[in-house]
Amino acid sequence: MSKRIVVQKYGGTSVRDAQRIKNVAGRIIDTVREGSSVVAVVSAPGDTTDRLMDMAYSITPQPDERELDVLLSTGEQQGISLVAMAIKQAGYNAVSLTGAQVGIVTDNAHSRARIKSISTDKVKKALDEGNVVIVAGFQGVSLEENITTLGRGGSDLSAVALASVLKADVCEIYTDVDGVYTTDPSIVPQAKKIDEITYDEMLEMASAGAGIMQSRSMEVAKKNNIKMHIRSSLKEHNFSRGTIVMEETKDLEQVVVRGVTLDTDQVKMTIVDVPDEPGVAAKIFGALAKGNINVDMIVQTSPHEKGLNDISFTVDKSRLKDASDILASVKEEIGAGRILTDESVAKVSIIGVGMRSHAGVAARMFEVLAKNSINIEMISTSEIKISCVVEEAEGEKAVKALHNEFCEE
Amino acid sequence: MSKRIVVQKYGGTSVRDAQRIKNVAGRIIDTVREGSSVVAVVSAPGDTTDRLMDMAYSITPQPDERELDVLLSTGEQQGISLVAMAIKQAGYNAVSLTGAQVGIVTDNAHSRARIKSISTDKVKKALDEGNVVIVAGFQGVSLEENITTLGRGGSDLSAVALASVLKADVCEIYTDVDGVYTTDPSIVPQAKKIDEITYDEMLEMASAGAGIMQSRSMEVAKKNNIKMHIRSSLKEHNFSRGTIVMEETKDLEQVVVRGVTLDTDQVKMTIVDVPDEPGVAAKIFGALAKGNINVDMIVQTSPHEKGLNDISFTVDKSRLKDASDILASVKEEIGAGRILTDESVAKVSIIGVGMRSHAGVAARMFEVLAKNSINIEMISTSEIKISCVVEEAEGEKAVKALHNEFCEE
Repeated sequence: MSKRIVVQKYGGTSVRDAQRIKNVAGRIIDTVREGSSVVAVVSAPGDTTDRLMDMAYSITPQPDERELDVLLSTGEQQGISLVAMAIKQAGYNAVSLTGAQVGIVTDNAHSRARIKSISTDKVKKALDEGNVVIVAGFQGVSLEENITTLGRGGSDLSAVALASVLKADVCEIYTDVDGVYTTDPSIVPQAKKIDEITYDEMLEMASAGAGIMQSRSMEVAKKNNIKMHIRSSLKEHNFSRGTIVMEETKDLEQVVVRGVTLDTDQVKMTIVDVPDEPGVAAKIFGALAKGNINVDMIVQTSPHEKGLNDISFTVDKSRLKDASDILASVKEEIGAGRILTDESVAKVSIIGVGMRSHAGVAARMFEVLAKNSINIEMISTSEIKISCVVEEAEGEKAVKALHNEFCEE
Repeated sequence: MSKRIVVQKYGGTSVRDAQRIKNVAGRIIDTVREGSSVVAVVSAPGDTTDRLMDMAYSITPQPDERELDVLLSTGEQQGISLVAMAIKQAGYNAVSLTGAQVGIVTDNAHSRARIKSISTDKVKKALDEGNVVIVAGFQGVSLEENITTLGRGGSDLSAVALASVLKADVCEIYTDVDGVYTTDPSIVPQAKKIDEITYDEMLEMASAGAGIMQSRSMEVAKKNNIKMHIRSSLKEHNFSRGTIVMEETKDLEQVVVRGVTLDTDQVKMTIVDVPDEPGVAAKIFGALAKGNINVDMIVQTSPHEKGLNDISFTVDKSRLKDASDILASVKEEIGAGRILTDESVAKVSIIGVGMRSHAGVAARMFEVLAKNSINIEMISTSEIKISCVVEEAEGEKAVKALHNEFCEE
């Protein structure tokens, strides 16, 4: 009963072929041999999901959402059966369970369902019987017994949610990198693996463009205080430590800047000559919110001549078309001037819980950028993050300079 | 409530690519437009099952049976979602259901499960709501909620069993031929499509080598008196009639021989010098039965000198190795002589319920073979079938001659 429970999550690249599936089985068995009960959440192998999508689109340009979930969920179902076979082949007990079999109950929002509850009976019984339990990630079942999928990052979410209801000791996220880095090593070779990071820092890293884990999963981990371990699934790193995501501690505040991120997927939009009247901003951003468009980094100029403002903000490049359509009609309504869009921008951010107790971090950041002749177009700050929008061409230079200033001794 | 219910079954070749899936959707919609409620049982598209098997064997030479069923069942699940998408795309309501979702409850014998019960609630509710219901063939769920598969011909069985519990008006089996023929048209170009055939004749045809439908499904159809319609899934034959399998009627007895079959998958085994003692045959065939080997056409010679018999019988070629192993030990036990095997044999059969009321059919058969200088090695008869084992090289010649005698005017 007091056995350590470890939830592990293996993404699609970790199970993309027979050899990798056997490696995953080996790693799970290693964990069992260390004395832990293991629940492994597995994604669809390799490009399975893409191939299933292609199949659906060969039938219709607009696949029915319910049926698309029935189709896509087969990918993870294949993954779990193959991993379970590999474990049994090695002489250990394993049992695979689909989302429906576990009882991962979601709402009925196909392709983006939200988990409402998870039954632990079946998983606990299987663990008690000495099995490794292999659970299909990304999928659940609605109260109406329809198969649902959780959307992007869904397997991470399955893992964290299972770790939460099972009161697991740790939730290990296996990926093709060996942890979270102080910045993208392909830009800055001096980037270092981060040993420990707080939930809030991870959340800011994700929203600032470091594509490690979806924010939704990290929020669940934070809320339930699930210790996360982000580590490599490559066999040779078997016992290497990755990055632990955990609650904030005194120690974690010693570092001022945990990481530097670059996000080139943003586009800057500016509404020129907005009348400086109460409620105008609410109209603009209310309309965007209604269109499900996330807005980042809002900057409003002080009213210039004739009581007119400029309002700038950034949105995801993928939403540019939708945002433009919405703004075109809002512009008429509020009587604003032109709408400018600038796609060649980059957002550089520094993130760290230590900022709260160390003054002057923002000033140091601006100074570094100035010294490198990088012009700052927009600034936004939170308690533990400072972001600047710069010209896209200057983005990597900015990251290098900031990493050198804050993350290299 | 009094709407006609049609169960249709589409095999893997009928849904092997996008175009064929759309054809199947079109055919289902045609049936709906004729005023019927349709339940369509769909198999795994094309070579999906083979590819899944390859995946399993790339992990282990002996895949765990439970997990293999989890893996294989994804094939039909893909098939049903794609067919449902195609129907919805055409503007009709459809909903796919896996074996577990329908409630096709089986025993726990993975890879060869037997159906114990089928819940009709979900299917009837979906039909009442105006849906076409697309059901995954070949699969079910055990009482322990494990995914199971029904083994070879499983989708036919799913269809017939569903037709039975739904009290369907007809169960249509769509295939790549347009019905059951009097004999294999690739051997005898004059072969004709049979319009109507009895369950018993179909059972004998199947056991005699005409690979149209598994005996297990036909037995369920007979037991529940389900009218079966075996027809082509090729779009151009949309409204052509195939072969109806039904209860025996007076009319059906008018034809003496319904069909002629050839089976070259049999091997003849002979145990030489078997002591002529009570219980010896029981020992031989008991041991084979225990090894799950089906034996056909047993012939025992009269005891020759020293009170010894020869016992010959045929078994499926695929079971030759197992049968030989079993006989080797039985031979010692009963003190028999050598065991001979002859793989170059063929079994030709004539089948027809009319035989019962027409005398001299066997004599005519032997006469035809004699006239064509074909030597008969073994003979066995049932009420509605006469089979002869001949040299394999003479098999097609025998079929041609018998078809000419009995099935051509």
